[in-house]
Formats: sequence, structure tokens, C-alpha cells
Amino acid sequence: MTVRFAILGAGRIGQVHARAVASVPGAKLVAIAEPVAAAAEAARMAFGCEIRSIDACSTAKDIDAVVICTPTDTHADLIEQFARAGKAVFCEKPVDLDVARVKQALATVAREKATLMVGFNRRFDPDFMAVKAAIDAGKLGTVEMVTIISRDPGAPPHDYITRSGGIFRDMTIHDFDMARWLLGEEVETVIASASVLTDPKIGALGDYDSVNVILRTASGRQAIITNSRRATYGYDQRIEVLGSKGMAAAKNTALANIVTADAAGFHEPPLLDFFMTRYTAAYANEIAAFVAAIADGAPTPTTGQDGLMALVLAEAALLSVAEGRAVQVADVTD
Amino acid sequence: MTVRFAILGAGRIGQVHARAVASVPGAKLVAIAEPVAAAAEAARMAFGCEIRSIDACSTAKDIDAVVICTPTDTHADLIEQFARAGKAVFCEKPVDLDVARVKQALATVAREKATLMVGFNRRFDPDFMAVKAAIDAGKLGTVEMVTIISRDPGAPPHDYITRSGGIFRDMTIHDFDMARWLLGEEVETVIASASVLTDPKIGALGDYDSVNVILRTASGRQAIITNSRRATYGYDQRIEVLGSKGMAAAKNTALANIVTADAAGFHEPPLLDFFMTRYTAAYANEIAAFVAAIADGAPTPTTGQDGLMALVLAEAALLSVAEGRAVQVADVTD
Amino acid sequence: MTVRFAILGAGRIGQVHARAVASVPGAKLVAIAEPVAAAAEAARMAFGCEIRSIDACSTAKDIDAVVICTPTDTHADLIEQFARAGKAVFCEKPVDLDVARVKQALATVAREKATLMVGFNRRFDPDFMAVKAAIDAGKLGTVEMVTIISRDPGAPPHDYITRSGGIFRDMTIHDFDMARWLLGEEVETVIASASVLTDPKIGALGDYDSVNVILRTASGRQAIITNSRRATYGYDQRIEVLGSKGMAAAKNTALANIVTADAAGFHEPPLLDFFMTRYTAAYANEIAAFVAAIADGAPTPTTGQDGLMALVLAEAALLSVAEGRAVQVADVTD
Amino acid sequence: MTVRFAILGAGRIGQVHARAVASVPGAKLVAIAEPVAAAAEAARMAFGCEIRSIDACSTAKDIDAVVICTPTDTHADLIEQFARAGKAVFCEKPVDLDVARVKQALATVAREKATLMVGFNRRFDPDFMAVKAAIDAGKLGTVEMVTIISRDPGAPPHDYITRSGGIFRDMTIHDFDMARWLLGEEVETVIASASVLTDPKIGALGDYDSVNVILRTASGRQAIITNSRRATYGYDQRIEVLGSKGMAAAKNTALANIVTADAAGFHEPPLLDFFMTRYTAAYANEIAAFVAAIADGAPTPTTGQDGLMALVLAEAALLSVAEGRAVQVADVTD
Repeated sequence: MTVRFAILGAGRIGQVHARAVASVPGAKLVAIAEPVAAAAEAARMAFGCEIRSIDACSTAKDIDAVVICTPTDTHADLIEQFARAGKAVFCEKPVDLDVARVKQALATVAREKATLMVGFNRRFDPDFMAVKAAIDAGKLGTVEMVTIISRDPGAPPHDYITRSGGIFRDMTIHDFDMARWLLGEEVETVIASASVLTDPKIGALGDYDSVNVILRTASGRQAIITNSRRATYGYDQRIEVLGSKGMAAAKNTALANIVTADAAGFHEPPLLDFFMTRYTAAYANEIAAFVAAIADGAPTPTTGQDGLMALVLAEAALLSVAEGRAVQVADVTD
Repeated sequence: MTVRFAILGAGRIGQVHARAVASVPGAKLVAIAEPVAAAAEAARMAFGCEIRSIDACSTAKDIDAVVICTPTDTHADLIEQFARAGKAVFCEKPVDLDVARVKQALATVAREKATLMVGFNRRFDPDFMAVKAAIDAGKLGTVEMVTIISRDPGAPPHDYITRSGGIFRDMTIHDFDMARWLLGEEVETVIASASVLTDPKIGALGDYDSVNVILRTASGRQAIITNSRRATYGYDQRIEVLGSKGMAAAKNTALANIVTADAAGFHEPPLLDFFMTRYTAAYANEIAAFVAAIADGAPTPTTGQDGLMALVLAEAALLSVAEGRAVQVADVTD
Repeated sequence: MTVRFAILGAGRIGQVHARAVASVPGAKLVAIAEPVAAAAEAARMAFGCEIRSIDACSTAKDIDAVVICTPTDTHADLIEQFARAGKAVFCEKPVDLDVARVKQALATVAREKATLMVGFNRRFDPDFMAVKAAIDAGKLGTVEMVTIISRDPGAPPHDYITRSGGIFRDMTIHDFDMARWLLGEEVETVIASASVLTDPKIGALGDYDSVNVILRTASGRQAIITNSRRATYGYDQRIEVLGSKGMAAAKNTALANIVTADAAGFHEPPLLDFFMTRYTAAYANEIAAFVAAIADGAPTPTTGQDGLMALVLAEAALLSVAEGRAVQVADVTD
Repeated sequence: MTVRFAILGAGRIGQVHARAVASVPGAKLVAIAEPVAAAAEAARMAFGCEIRSIDACSTAKDIDAVVICTPTDTHADLIEQFARAGKAVFCEKPVDLDVARVKQALATVAREKATLMVGFNRRFDPDFMAVKAAIDAGKLGTVEMVTIISRDPGAPPHDYITRSGGIFRDMTIHDFDMARWLLGEEVETVIASASVLTDPKIGALGDYDSVNVILRTASGRQAIITNSRRATYGYDQRIEVLGSKGMAAAKNTALANIVTADAAGFHEPPLLDFFMTRYTAAYANEIAAFVAAIADGAPTPTTGQDGLMALVLAEAALLSVAEGRAVQVADVTD
């Protein structure tokens, strides 16, 4: 069985997914929907697929699945449209910046018995998967403490920040999902701290660029997340899990796996520059997992509920910063 | 000039300091005060020094300086006794478990114009000093985020825990001092989270074994501290500083600097087992710095005020856990 | 311009190249020639290309270039056939096991003004390229000493060994080429030592499994190569270059970039298992370089002469082992 | 029992040994013999010991053992003088630059039933000991290939080179001993290559600065040694052993165990600068082993025979370079 895809949006992340679909056996890229003519034409040339409108994709007989890579404020509508059209839906995070709207979209998906996978690409990174496999194999014993160090090489453009929902919903959201995945228990309490250190304009836009978060589960497991919008040495992506029997950690990936030495000491290249290069394999694995779930009629490895819970943790973190207190997740979800 | 020392207490840490004094040029170990006869005799044999009473040490003409390694509840009294006796005083942390008593002792020291250095040995570790030197040389630009991962190989005996003042005052206190030193600004706000994960008896004693703390300064710099009383792979001691221009981190130290490989992969030995082996050089450097300050009539690199501030942060962390809120340091110091 | 390819031979390395051709922009896989019906059918299914005879490929109008992945003893004949047919030729190493036959084939290529690239895939590995770039950028100063540690995870089947021409012509030949590339000067003298340590049957077949070689250039630069047919921990591929100003080294690549720790210490996964996984990027880069050279009418980055010189060094090494002496390369080439 | 020491020669290595004797329990530094008055006085001040003549040391009742740190051409005579005087003798390598003279001195030692330990300090380095322990514990299976990368930070002064016996007898001699120790079998064949690359004056003095050596045992085990007199990044000291079951390697030691990062990538400090700092622990362990052997009446862990065999390998290497051939060790020893 070949799963036939349309990709909605041919921007940066749309191209990443188009490449992933092209590289995954059992998947075929049929069409891209992209309103900007030049971008559409570039995508057509690069991927050799058709250009169609979104509506044409949703009614097409030769399309089984859709990857939503359009701006965030269209996600929930498109999820509902394609769920109703009987297509399997893969949506980039977040489903929406508003918790209530997310719940509404998920309700539609449930009603339509549609397949919805939310894009938490990092769960599909080979190194992070190897850490998770070590946990699942019992090598760490009981998970106790998770440490996530996640730093972007630089802040996004100011207009992106304006539309992003803020650092917790845009950047930390990946780490919230990673923490949930690694902790193996739902988070009960969120404590967060946030500053503006790299660029005062980010503060002027009402956002932060430097945040730390502590998450706690009912049994007392804890995760700590440290984020910065600036790391001069590249895209810093580390996870570490401490358990009763031991520890597992994923290391960073450099531009090249070499070392040079001179009178000043030893030198290694900077890290890969951002998510498109760092998570190439993860994006391909993610689409492969989506394809496999469709082919097998099995649940997708990440779900709309995962998308909701990560957003809820972001809401709780914002509230914690605003009120200077530990926030119960239950208070946000209700 | 040779600084002549008495060491008060010949327990584990007393022996560490006796060895340090013996190895530092310009320092001479004259006497040890130790009430347990067998321990006193062992120390006499090992270090070739006299055994005297504490009072004899404080009145002796041939003693210039004293290292206080007795139980915590005697520290403040001994600091005052030896400050009044005109001796330079080096006291192991903490000065006292009670903030008010610490302030009182510091007032006595100030009144006597005595020299008091509080033992934050980690500031004298060669690797941590190299990180600090990178900061001071401007290599990192402005310090923004500090990350401290500090895990003991195992919890201390239950009766030690009872007398310790709890994990924040006993273990995290070192990390509080390290954070103050690396942040380069005083901490304004403390947020903490604490669990019991390694041993329920620790909880029964009213203490925690797994804690995370976020510290924030007035300008928004942040430090994150993660502590556990258990790390099966050894004494885990890492610091990392992110600045506007770059990052600096101290790595762990293993039992041997080797790697072996077989069909299961690559293997390196566990970490050094605890502070006596991990910080051998730090303890010697610390005493050398104390000796140098005495010889030069210069301020000591760590002070009674440093001891007070670390304790205050521990108080604030306890309060934060108890009340589930961010605690202003000013509220605790006043 | 799109370069249209035929691949001769659908064995292990033929499939590697088919995948590489499929992934390189500007290249198109038109046909595979494979005499074994089942293998041909599998290749057709996997790559969606036609199956043709070798002769049909050489006369086809819709084929511009050929990748020769057939058994070694057919390489020279096929190079000549396709050079005469006006196709650009990429041939897996070695051109032939016999120096005279190689020279003859290269003469035919020269006469036909044909394009011939010999497959030394390691020159296209991103890490090794980064080491070479450091040299070319002058970071090491004058190159003085090259160290190549190259170990296979296990020996090939005995019947492969019989046909392989022996370890120097089959395995070390890659390191000879790497040494020439890194030394930046032609090798003048070869000294080699060889033993049978991993499997006595290899000795019974007249081959070795453990060899060390020292190469020296006219100006006294030296390279040292150490090879073993067994490394339990995976495919060990390291290069290191010492120059007057500093050093550069490429590190190994593990199955995952993680570390776990327990009471026994720290553990990392074994290395990638062999050349198909270790050099995936190198094979793609290699074909891309071939395609670029054809498209630009430029010389290929590796040539028939490179193939010849690596074989000559293998001959010299064999002679050095046999006679227990340093062998002048000039004595072998004449 | 306390072993009472005299040290002959208060130069660089004499001071290293004086410090080692002072730090080893069970050893006592009684006297130093040093003809240069200023150096003698400095040693007396630094170590608080007496200054005596060599002859006074050899006849003294209060001296049990002697450490010979005088110029090489006095070693053999002093070994014989102190062996006859009934002192335990520790002699820095080499015993003499002439094989026949070494044999003569060892014969005297044997006749006198004296204790003689030759200083191959690297066998006592904790990291190298851990590699050896892995071999001895059977973790590597049968040892097959040893790789030693050993580079000095810079060449010694020209007048030292003149007296040194050349790079093989002065520098490689340590690696020859290390190879013998790790191979676990005597070397049968030596093949060497030598160039002058760092300083033409070294060539004018008849010496080399860049050498590679291959050693082979009767069963075919091989060791490869690569030496350079220049490494801009510090004192490069690596050993690696490949066996039938796996591999073990000792890593280098840097000035500090930290990493910094910036837009140019990751940086670590240079290596320790030379043997006095790199092998501090090894020198102390070495003297401790000497003291233990004396106290137990046991054989010393390194012997005069070890000193002889390392020198023989140096002779064989020189002959191999001169004649461009593999040299049988038996031809040099006879």
C-alpha cells in the first residue's frame, strides 16, 4: 500500500516534510498547496509534484493523507476540514494557541474517527530514541530526574515572535513533550521563570528569551528545562535522564565529527545550525511512523492529546511566571 | 612567613584539611584537637603533630590559624572563641544552620577585625577555576544562564541527615555558593521543588533527596540547580555557564582517563567516588589561598558573608517548597 | 543537464551506488545490468529502473555514464568497453589486481579521451573532507605525519579473500589512497609488516589479517597505517594528521550519539557496523562529484592514476613483507 | 620500616624524584648529592634534607637506597658503586648508551645480589596501569596490536641532543618499554623509519625528530610507535591495545577538564606541557613501588633487564633505518 500525500504550505517546514515524504518508502507526494505562486513553482520543480488548492486536496480521490504546514492560526480549521474529508492528518505543532480551540478540534477528530498525528519530531530523533530505548529496557531503573538543555542558535524574526504565542508555546513546547515522553508520568505541577536577556525587543513584544521550568509528577519525578533563544555555538539539544540504576544522555551533533589542535588547545566545529539539519532523520522517521500507522490502521505514536498536553504545560508555565507560584496542571486543563 | 595551624576535629573532613595543610608551602600543622582518643592518636601518627585541647589551641602562642572541622552546631561558638583569641579562622560550611546565629557570629568577627574564611572548596577546584577564568576573561560575554548538575553517589547515614539541616543546607548549599560565584550578581528570587525518590526514610526524617532550584538575579540572569542524593555512576559534578558570546563547562572526572571497547560498545570508568577524591586539589588550593591571604593581610577569597548568603538561599528554597511560590531573598534576610 | 546512469552489477556495492544515484540531484538511474535474475528483479523493484544487458547499456543512446560494480576481474575490460562507447565511467576500486593490466586500461581511457573516476569513497566522507579542508586552509602548517587506524569489524568470507588479491590490495588500498591524499606528496618508500592473528585459515589462503605499514615521501613526510580484519566494537575508521602548526583528526561514528552510565561506568554504543552504513554520505557525495565533473566537463576528483598508485603501494607493501626491507616505489612502478 | 634515600643529582628529574620520595609513606629523603652549589642549596631549602657528596652517600649508614639522576654517562659507574655498597639502586633510564656497558653493569648488580630498578615511569601512570589491568583481567582477549602515539611538545636543546644518544635511545626508549609491557611477548623484529621535519639542525647533529617503528613478536603480535619532537598542542601521550575480544586506550590529559564554546565551535585547553606535570602521579607511584619492593624483599617491577631490552630495541631501530631493512633483535643482542 502506498500512502499518497498532499502537503499544505511550501514554507521552510513544508519543504522539510516534502523531502521526508519523498524519502520514505510507501509514501508518495502527490500535491502541494501553496498560495504564493513563486514558492509553489519552486516546490513543483524541486519535488516534481502537482500544485493544487487546499480545497482541491481535501476533495481529491488520489490523496490519502495531508501534512499541515500552514500558519498556526489555520491549523485547527484545516484539521477539522481534512478529518471530515476522511484524510489522515499530520499537523505541525501547535494545533492552536488556544486550549479551548484545540479541544474543539480534537473533538471533531474524535467524532470523525479520523487519524491525527501532531508533529513532535524530536521523539523520532535516533539519539533520543536510543535514550528512550534504554529507559524502556530498564537500564535506568525507575526514572527520577529529567534534564533538558535546549537552546536555539538565535531568536526568530520579531514578526514571527508576535504570531508565535510566545517562547513557551513555540519553543519550550517541544521540551514539554519530550519531558512527558521521558518522565513516563503526567506532569502535575509546573514552576517557571522567564527573563529577557538576549534582545530587549523581545521583551517589548511581550515575550521572553531565557526560561527555566521545573515539572513535577504525582510520584515526585521531576524534569528541568532550560531554554535560551541564543547559543552562539549552534543548535544545542541535550536530554538526560537519571534513574534509580543509572543515567542516559543524548549528546549534541556537530557540523563535522573532527577535532583540530594547535597551541591554543583542541577545537571542534560548532553544532548543526538548526532543526532542519539537526532533525533530518527525525522528520523522515516521523513521516515513516505516520505512514506505518495509516498502513496498519494503528494509533499514531503522537496524538492530538499530546499536542493538547504540551500546550497546557505552556499555559501553566506562563501562569507560573505571571503569578510567581507553582501551578497545578489540573487548574489549567479544567 | 610560615602560618602555623591547629585543626579542630580529626574526622573525615578534618583529615582532608590536615593533608592539605601538610602539602601547602608556607603552612605548618602544629596541633590537632580531637576528643576521641583513638582518632586523636591516629591523626598524631598520620600527621606527626601534637594533640591539644581546643582551649589550649586558642590560647597557644605557636598557633596562628585554625581550621574548624567539628560538628556544625559548634561552628559559631568556635568562630567567636578563636576570633577573640586573635587567630585567623577557617570554618567548614555552614557557619550555623540558623541565619540569626550566623549573623551574630559574623558581627563578632567584624568587631574583632578577625580573618574568617568559610570553606566553599569548589571555588578552588582547578576545572571550576578555569571556567571562572573564561568568564572573567570576557570569553562568554555577559553571563546569562548557569546550569549546575550536582549528584552525590549516595545518601549520607540517616543520623547525619537528622543533624544536617536538610539537603538544601547540607548539599545544595555548595551549589548556591557556586551559582552566586558564577552569576556575578546577587540572587533576588528563589524557586525550588523537592521530592523523595531514592529512599522513603529520608522523607520520614523530614528531608528530600531530589531537588531542583531556579535562582534569578535582578537583571534576569538565571541559574538552575539539579541535585540528587544518588548517582550509581559516581560523584557527578558539572557546571555550565551560558553567556552572550558563548558557553563554558567543567566536565566530570573519572577514576581513570581510559576507554575500553567490546561488542557491547565503548566503556569508561565511573566517576571519582566522592568529595575527598574529587576535590583533593581544591582543598589544597583553598588552604593555600587562606595562607596567602593571612600572609598578605588581604581579604580571604570566601568570607563569612558568602557563608551567610548561601544559607539564606537554602532558607529561601525551603520556604519556596513549603509554600509553592517564588521567594524573594530580601524577605528571608530581613 | 541530467546525467543518465547505468549500474553494472546489483550486488552489495551496486545497490549502494544505485541508492546514491537516486539521491543525487542531476543524476537519473536508467538501467541496471545484473545477470542473476532474482537480483535483477529485486533491483528493478527497489529502484524502479530497467534491467538491460551490459552490451545494451554500452550501446544505449539514453545512457551517459556507467558505474562498474561487477567482480574485480571484469573491471579493466568494462572500463575499456565503455570508454570506447563514449560513456563516462565510474569504476569501483581496484581497476585490476595486476599493475600492467591497469596501465593498459588507463592507456585506452587516455586514447579515447574518456572520463574515468575510480571509487575511493573515503575522500568524500564529510569528516575526512573536513580534515582535508583544515590542511588546505593552512591550519596545520606543513603536513608531517599521518596516522590511519582502520579496522574492519570482521574478515570477509574465505572465498572472497581468495579473489580479493589479499589484504593490501583489498583493504589497505583505501588507506594507501587516503595517505596519498593527506600527505600531499607522492610516496617514495614503503615498509610493511604482516601477521595472521584473527583466523589461521586466512594464513592458509596466503593472506594476512593484521598489517602495519610505514610510507615515506621524498621530503621525509611519513604515514603510518594500522589494519586489522577484526574489531569487535565495529568499523573503526580514524585518520589523524600532524603538521608543523597543529593536528587534525576525524573521530569514529557510533550507532547512536548517546551515553549511558551505571555502577560499572559510562557506556557508548558500538561503531557503525560497516562501510554501507559508515560511508552512506560519502557514496552520495562521490556520485555527486562524478556528476558535477561530467556536467562541467571538468576532471574527476579521483582518477585512474589514483587507482594505479594505490595498487602500486599495495604491491610495494607485499614485496616489503616478503623481503623484509624498505621498498622504493619507483622499483615497483617501472 | 622506613626506606632512607639519597638522591644523586638535583636537576629537573632529580627534583621530580625528591618530591616523589617526600610524598611516599615509608620513604624518607635524607640527602641529596649535587655538585653545583646553588642547585644544592636550592634543593636543601626545598626539601629540608642534607647535602652530601656521592661518596659520602655510598658509605653512609643512614641511607638504604639511592636514586640516580645524574648525567647518563655516569649511570653505569654509579650503579656499580652503590650496588657494591649494598644500597638499593633506582636509576633513571638509560643505564648507558652502550649495550656492552649495560650488560657489564647488570653483571655487577647480579654478582652483588643488589636491587636495581630502572626508571620507566610510564608503567606507573594510573591511566596506563588501568589499560594494563584491563589486559590482565582478560577483557581484551589475546593482545594483537599495540598503537603508541607519543609526541613531545618541543625538541630539547641542541647540546642535550648531542649527549642523548639520539631520539630512539632518548625518547622512543620509553615507548619501546611500553610496547614490551603491553605486548606481553618479547619483540623479535624491528622496522623503523626516521626523518628530520621540525628542525634541520637536529639532522645536522646526526639525529631525527620524526620516527615510526613497527615491532613484531614471534607469534606475530605487532606494535606501532609514532614519535615527533613537536606537538604544538602539548605533550601527546596515547596508548591503545587491540585484542581478540576488544580494545583499551588511554586518553590524553589536558591542562583543565573544561570545554568552552563560541561561534567558532568548541574548545578545550592544550595538553599538560611535559613529563614533570603529566607523570607526577607516575613518579610517585614508581618510587612507592621501589620502596615496597625493598620493604618486602621482592623483585622490583622494572629491572635492569628491562633497561637493557629497551636499549637493544633502540639499537635495532637505528640499524633498521641505516640499512632499510627489518632487523632481528637477536642479531643486536648477541
